Amino acid sequence: MPNPIPEDSVGIVTPKSQHFSKPLELECGKTLSEYDIAYETYGELNANGSNAILICHALSGDQHAAGYHSSEDRKAGWWESSIGPGKPIDTHRFYVVSLNNLGGCKGSTGPNTKIPGTDKYWGPDFPIVTVKDWVNSQHRLMQELDITHWCAVIGGSLGGMQVLQWSIDFPDLIKHALVIAAAPKLSAQNIAFNEVARQAIQADPDFHNGHYLENNSIPRRGLMLARMLGHITYLSDDSMRDKFGRELREGKLSFGFDVDFQVESYLRHQGKSFVDRFDANSYLLMTKTLDYFDPASECKHDLSVAVSPSTAKFMVISFTSDWRFAPERSREIVKALLDAGKQVSYVEVKADQGHDAFLIPIPHYMNVFHGYMNNVYEDIL
Amino acid sequence: MPNPIPEDSVGIVTPKSQHFSKPLELECGKTLSEYDIAYETYGELNANGSNAILICHALSGDQHAAGYHSSEDRKAGWWESSIGPGKPIDTHRFYVVSLNNLGGCKGSTGPNTKIPGTDKYWGPDFPIVTVKDWVNSQHRLMQELDITHWCAVIGGSLGGMQVLQWSIDFPDLIKHALVIAAAPKLSAQNIAFNEVARQAIQADPDFHNGHYLENNSIPRRGLMLARMLGHITYLSDDSMRDKFGRELREGKLSFGFDVDFQVESYLRHQGKSFVDRFDANSYLLMTKTLDYFDPASECKHDLSVAVSPSTAKFMVISFTSDWRFAPERSREIVKALLDAGKQVSYVEVKADQGHDAFLIPIPHYMNVFHGYMNNVYEDIL
Repeated sequence: MPNPIPEDSVGIVTPKSQHFSKPLELECGKTLSEYDIAYETYGELNANGSNAILICHALSGDQHAAGYHSSEDRKAGWWESSIGPGKPIDTHRFYVVSLNNLGGCKGSTGPNTKIPGTDKYWGPDFPIVTVKDWVNSQHRLMQELDITHWCAVIGGSLGGMQVLQWSIDFPDLIKHALVIAAAPKLSAQNIAFNEVARQAIQADPDFHNGHYLENNSIPRRGLMLARMLGHITYLSDDSMRDKFGRELREGKLSFGFDVDFQVESYLRHQGKSFVDRFDANSYLLMTKTLDYFDPASECKHDLSVAVSPSTAKFMVISFTSDWRFAPERSREIVKALLDAGKQVSYVEVKADQGHDAFLIPIPHYMNVFHGYMNNVYEDIL
Repeated sequence: MPNPIPEDSVGIVTPKSQHFSKPLELECGKTLSEYDIAYETYGELNANGSNAILICHALSGDQHAAGYHSSEDRKAGWWESSIGPGKPIDTHRFYVVSLNNLGGCKGSTGPNTKIPGTDKYWGPDFPIVTVKDWVNSQHRLMQELDITHWCAVIGGSLGGMQVLQWSIDFPDLIKHALVIAAAPKLSAQNIAFNEVARQAIQADPDFHNGHYLENNSIPRRGLMLARMLGHITYLSDDSMRDKFGRELREGKLSFGFDVDFQVESYLRHQGKSFVDRFDANSYLLMTKTLDYFDPASECKHDLSVAVSPSTAKFMVISFTSDWRFAPERSREIVKALLDAGKQVSYVEVKADQGHDAFLIPIPHYMNVFHGYMNNVYEDIL
């Protein structure tokens, strides 16, 4: 029997979908003639419409950020730690909108949906979308939901990049920008890891150049490898040591190529379970979206010029053991914002959990997050 | 026309091979009934046999540590930077022995050689060898070459682990131990990267469960992925930034899955060229050898107890930007040696090149290395 739904959860939520028939021009030059965006909402929009918050998801996230889809559902949304009654993003106070980005695989138009007017999957032909494209599509959704402005836009990792882009592209529509465990652009090493992940997927013979759905196949091994690799970069060396050390699965070395160490078994499990919930073409797309993000590139590589249109107040949070997007990367954002004369808070949270820390209810992090959200709430009263 | 061979090179060298007909018992419980070891030597053994040095290679190394195989040969041995006349391992002073470890793919008995008395390749049936097994086989070679003791055993990375094992297993036969860019055992993160590399190879349909030679195939894409991934861990984030930054190959984004960034192109090239020179089964084996190395495991995880038999003088060198085997890992070795009352020198070289630094003639590193080798030389005079 499943556990009862905890009292500090938003409870059972129903996924929604919005159809858009107005074409969306993309940075790549292509146009989506029509599209759908899957989303969820938590809490209630207040009378003067001042309490809306947008949540932006990371690489493998989706619209299901909090709550459960049924009373049988064993797993809550991906940011259950931070969204719900009494939590930092308090659903008694705020109206929270969370969506699946275009190119995703959880109901929004993407590679695993069909090209309008045809019976063919988009597959590898889905255009490469950028963070800017996502922000535009999120703005369209905002209009459909009759939201006049966001009291806050919040996201971690790739989500934080969307927050930064929102503050640049729609400065009048966002009061607070919470940029968590993010970076102003990927490093060569970040891109290198993404490239190996992509090659792993594309090398899988079941990938069929991206047309695997028509071929009734799934590039399981490639996607599994990509996720295993990603997972290493989400954890810190310390957290892996604390979690697994060099513990042997069977108590002794196998002298073969089966699993010897617990960490191998854990990674294989992570990789396998990911294949059941994610689409390989979406993974390829989203890694490219990450690689391409670089708002300063249009401003002679001066991030402080890029963020100059912003009028939001910023909260930047990083985690000490995060080596995917290390605190130095957050400090680059903070410095650019300060150079541009913006209002910025910055907290570097001591945490052993690596990049994944942004999803974990670490007390110091929760205190900081909660405290800042109190400010956001005071601003709307 | 190839460049003339530089004067500070050992010049043209001829690979040699030694056959062993006395069975070698391995840690896994299996026995190699007979085997060959491919090796090279540089310099001359002196009259009292006191100037012999053993070089131990790393994961993808081999016996060809210095010099050229012909006047047409464009590429010198892998440690040309440190071995040769006037170099730290000065071949005017020392007699240098460098071998291909068992399980390798450059002439020593390994997966790409045939099982004695049959016409079948060892392939995946080659036993998993350990660092201890290697040291035993190196000791056998030493006896065949009539070398009574090593004035120094020297190695970087996995090579440094062999040096440590030599000092423990044959304390009377080794005067100086140079352990460079090594670790006393792999971390969970190190093992995790190895596991992803192995899975990449094993997932390749051309792998045929390791029997690819009989099937006239090569798991090119798997081995390429493994090498690309390995390569990321050999370079530092800084060195990748300095080398590639976010430089675009064609000057603009492709909005496709071809190469966008220089770093992608570099990695693909590294991966592809590795496939032409390395065997996939050997790669699998050597990553397991790395994973299994943990001399302290037999001594209640107390490394100072494990090294207590050693009588060698130690030189430990690490590199600041090495995140594969970070300076902390070298310091664990140094601390254990000091706790055990051994004579140890330790230098942490400031270097941006990551783990690969141990192969690069960085002036501070070369000075330190040269200085220590002067001591080694003085000890034999």
